[in-house]
Amino acid sequence: MAEALKEVEVLLVEDNPTDAELCIRALKKSNLANKLVWVKDGAEALDFIFAKGAYSERTGMTVPKVILLDLRLPKVDGMEVLRQIKADPRTRTIPVVVLTSSKEDRDVAQSYQLGVNSFISKPVEFDEFAKTVSELGLYWLLMNHPPVAAK
Amino acid sequence: MAEALKEVEVLLVEDNPTDAELCIRALKKSNLANKLVWVKDGAEALDFIFAKGAYSERTGMTVPKVILLDLRLPKVDGMEVLRQIKADPRTRTIPVVVLTSSKEDRDVAQSYQLGVNSFISKPVEFDEFAKTVSELGLYWLLMNHPPVAAK
Repeated sequence: MAEALKEVEVLLVEDNPTDAELCIRALKKSNLANKLVWVKDGAEALDFIFAKGAYSERTGMTVPKVILLDLRLPKVDGMEVLRQIKADPRTRTIPVVVLTSSKEDRDVAQSYQLGVNSFISKPVEFDEFAKTVSELGLYWLLMNHPPVAAK
Repeated sequence: MAEALKEVEVLLVEDNPTDAELCIRALKKSNLANKLVWVKDGAEALDFIFAKGAYSERTGMTVPKVILLDLRLPKVDGMEVLRQIKADPRTRTIPVVVLTSSKEDRDVAQSYQLGVNSFISKPVEFDEFAKTVSELGLYWLLMNHPPVAAK
């Protein structure tokens, strides 16, 4: 198994390759993308998080320090991915940041109701988007104390 | 009622005056402390959040964009404050950041189990602490999209 799959720090769930590449580049600039895994739809995200299907070897592996989750996703949408993560005691402590172009009140309210840790609207402007991703990477990877296994 | 009580953006729950003043000064430098309310124990925090006692006039008022919560507090400890906020559907969507000198695994694990949005260990060194508070203020007040009332 690739190293990134063993010791993942960031799970990026994003179907839009332009947005994903921008995120990865912004995190690389701050040296925060060494242990990043990018998945392109909600079904693959759930397989990764719950160590199923192609990711069944991840059973018992370290959990990401943060999941960056788009909402509009093929196969299983982001809201359902969030719901499943936060409904399961094994995974609900993993920090999830919704990173979406949606600013709809319904999406914001529902994300918080489901237990999202933070909700970030993607800035439309390229440089601003890169800056936002870099700052949220610094916050969740360097400042925030990640969850530890309950004793 | 004072303006800050009506339109609070930051609720700082901190019994240590040195730490509280450092937080307020760091947020002021970034112009983020205009709508900050500082309460000094867990009982006052709960009164504020649930609009009880001295804060009963706050019924129906805006909720903070973020609650900065120390864990070691007089009267009601921070973990119990967190538990009550996250157990009540009226308040569970409010972002809560634990800001504590504790790095004990048990505190980290329990905070995430209760649904904390983020856990920050107070840096021991003064300048580093001020920088951390400033950055978390920028993140939660300017970058994060705060919760809205469910439709």
